[in-house]
Amino acid sequence: MSFDQIVKPTLILDENRAMRNIDRMIERANSAEVDFRPHFKTHQSAEIGQLFRQRGVEKITVSSVEMAEYFAKSNWKDITIAFPVNILQIKEINHLAKDVFLGLLVESIEVVDALGKNLDAPVNVWIKIDVGAGRTGISWENEIEVKNVVERVIQTPNLHLEGLLTHAGHTYQTRQRSDTISVYQNSIRRLQNIQSNLQGLDLKLKISVGDTPSCCLVDDFEGVDEIRPGTFVFFDAMQIQIGSCNEEDVAVALACPIVALHPEREECVVYGGAIHLSKEYMTELDGIKHYGYIAPLHSDRWGKIIHGAYVKGLSQEHGVLHIPTDELAHLHIGGLIAIVPVHSCLTVNLMKKYLTARGKWIETIESNMNLGFV
Amino acid sequence: MSFDQIVKPTLILDENRAMRNIDRMIERANSAEVDFRPHFKTHQSAEIGQLFRQRGVEKITVSSVEMAEYFAKSNWKDITIAFPVNILQIKEINHLAKDVFLGLLVESIEVVDALGKNLDAPVNVWIKIDVGAGRTGISWENEIEVKNVVERVIQTPNLHLEGLLTHAGHTYQTRQRSDTISVYQNSIRRLQNIQSNLQGLDLKLKISVGDTPSCCLVDDFEGVDEIRPGTFVFFDAMQIQIGSCNEEDVAVALACPIVALHPEREECVVYGGAIHLSKEYMTELDGIKHYGYIAPLHSDRWGKIIHGAYVKGLSQEHGVLHIPTDELAHLHIGGLIAIVPVHSCLTVNLMKKYLTARGKWIETIESNMNLGFV
Repeated sequence: MSFDQIVKPTLILDENRAMRNIDRMIERANSAEVDFRPHFKTHQSAEIGQLFRQRGVEKITVSSVEMAEYFAKSNWKDITIAFPVNILQIKEINHLAKDVFLGLLVESIEVVDALGKNLDAPVNVWIKIDVGAGRTGISWENEIEVKNVVERVIQTPNLHLEGLLTHAGHTYQTRQRSDTISVYQNSIRRLQNIQSNLQGLDLKLKISVGDTPSCCLVDDFEGVDEIRPGTFVFFDAMQIQIGSCNEEDVAVALACPIVALHPEREECVVYGGAIHLSKEYMTELDGIKHYGYIAPLHSDRWGKIIHGAYVKGLSQEHGVLHIPTDELAHLHIGGLIAIVPVHSCLTVNLMKKYLTARGKWIETIESNMNLGFV
Repeated sequence: MSFDQIVKPTLILDENRAMRNIDRMIERANSAEVDFRPHFKTHQSAEIGQLFRQRGVEKITVSSVEMAEYFAKSNWKDITIAFPVNILQIKEINHLAKDVFLGLLVESIEVVDALGKNLDAPVNVWIKIDVGAGRTGISWENEIEVKNVVERVIQTPNLHLEGLLTHAGHTYQTRQRSDTISVYQNSIRRLQNIQSNLQGLDLKLKISVGDTPSCCLVDDFEGVDEIRPGTFVFFDAMQIQIGSCNEEDVAVALACPIVALHPEREECVVYGGAIHLSKEYMTELDGIKHYGYIAPLHSDRWGKIIHGAYVKGLSQEHGVLHIPTDELAHLHIGGLIAIVPVHSCLTVNLMKKYLTARGKWIETIESNMNLGFV
């Protein structure tokens, strides 16, 4: 099936671009001499995971216990769950820990103690540090708490302390390479500061960093042991805006049927809404808030992003697209158009499967998981 | 299974509240003497559909061909797809039209002609009118276009013209009953104006209106033949803000495990993010933008919304909750808390199934559909 046979919102994948994105990031990790532990929450697909494995990747990151279980079934043996341990899932964690080298994130004594009491297999532990993003983790400024948690981990059976881990999510606010690099460098300084405050404990603590903007734009990873980017495999409209990629690097788009044209207000309506794209939005420099860029769809690819066009509004199934008159004139009801999503991870999570230009469907965790109940 | 056995983000349903919401809306429709054609895109569940059927409801609204197919399988025989016809799905539409009384929305000559050429069974047709919401439909001001489309429908085989249909989505911007009623009354005046402009054609055109705020707050439905509200079955944080309901009417919440506490900034972090709640947000009168309200969770229900608490941020799996210090002091890691979603339709669509206080799982279209490919 080629793209022009699509009849409803369909997530299309450019495999060559994804492969090129993977190759480039491996090359960056190799030349910086850091471990590469890609985050698989973006693609959520065993088959796309294979593309990484073919290139020699052996360690991965996921964002939930369920995702760890899914990839463990595809024979991944070294998995970090980059989310604060949910101690309610201790049964599932124990299962996983028997099968794989499991990495967990802790940020409190309570959780360390709960693990010590309930784990029955060894796990690797990272201390989650908040370097300024303000989502979660022990604040980089709270040296005493970091030391307390580190000491407790060391004393606790079944816990092997790996190091300090952070996600500098505030790089997503940057729009210039120099700003991204500056956020990154601050983050590293803060982590190194913690490292040196812990020197008295005579530990070898690794440093693991995560976000796609840093991993794409920074060249010098000195002091860092591991990178865990995820979004880079597909990129998206947000990453174009940040400057992590060019539009030719974006590897997924949503193909949508055109159902109505409103030339008097330079708009068209597509079948493709919040349940396909998510309601993640972004704001352009000129203040326009939107839900994605727009490109023409051809039978085997999507074209260049249409200048001045964007997804103006989304309801459950409707997408309202603003498209300048000259371009709108080329469209017709019953035709198809492509949307470059703001956030590829959330769109993949909603769409559950990909169609490639070769007419092949690729599944994800959602499309082939046993939807049995808890 | 009771709510305190939950270990991961779980959509919980208060069946009594849903039933009461259904009963009240049926009563409103009956006393206003309008047809009741509830929108099933909110619950997306054959089993919840049964609650309506038990009360005598026979006509329903859905938002996609797929949803029409799903409910047709549960023996619903009168279904309006309240979305502009996607002519690329003509094969599926023909299938449906043979089994059920199918209602379709048209807003252009092209689509009417495409239906005339390709339909092989009769369907009911509504002209989609934009009464000011600006999403889609023929503008209420464009009388000539309305007349052209109406005339074309009449001339086209297999199309039976039902009337004028609108969704006054701009009631979602109102925050006072008088404003909601004013938007509603304007909408009706605009539809009646169109009706009278078409009098020369000697037609009996019904009027169908949709949005939950109007259907909850308006008492006088004179001139209207049919109402199609959907969200009222569960309501949500947005509907509380609009004033369509009280918090005691909200029938769904997301139960989330607490994974980290940050008392120094009055925050806690839960397992429960954008892939569970969606990224729909709302803004309070004081300017605070948030992704939901917060309530304590008990073993068989959730409690009163915590004053001053809200979901401050969402990433893929993380929810960052702002909770005032006094209330935060009651929480512990490994405990559970409830989030009242901003938009219940999008949360249901992501969560795919419900857990009731009686420990029963209720499925939706997504959890039991054949996830076979196109």
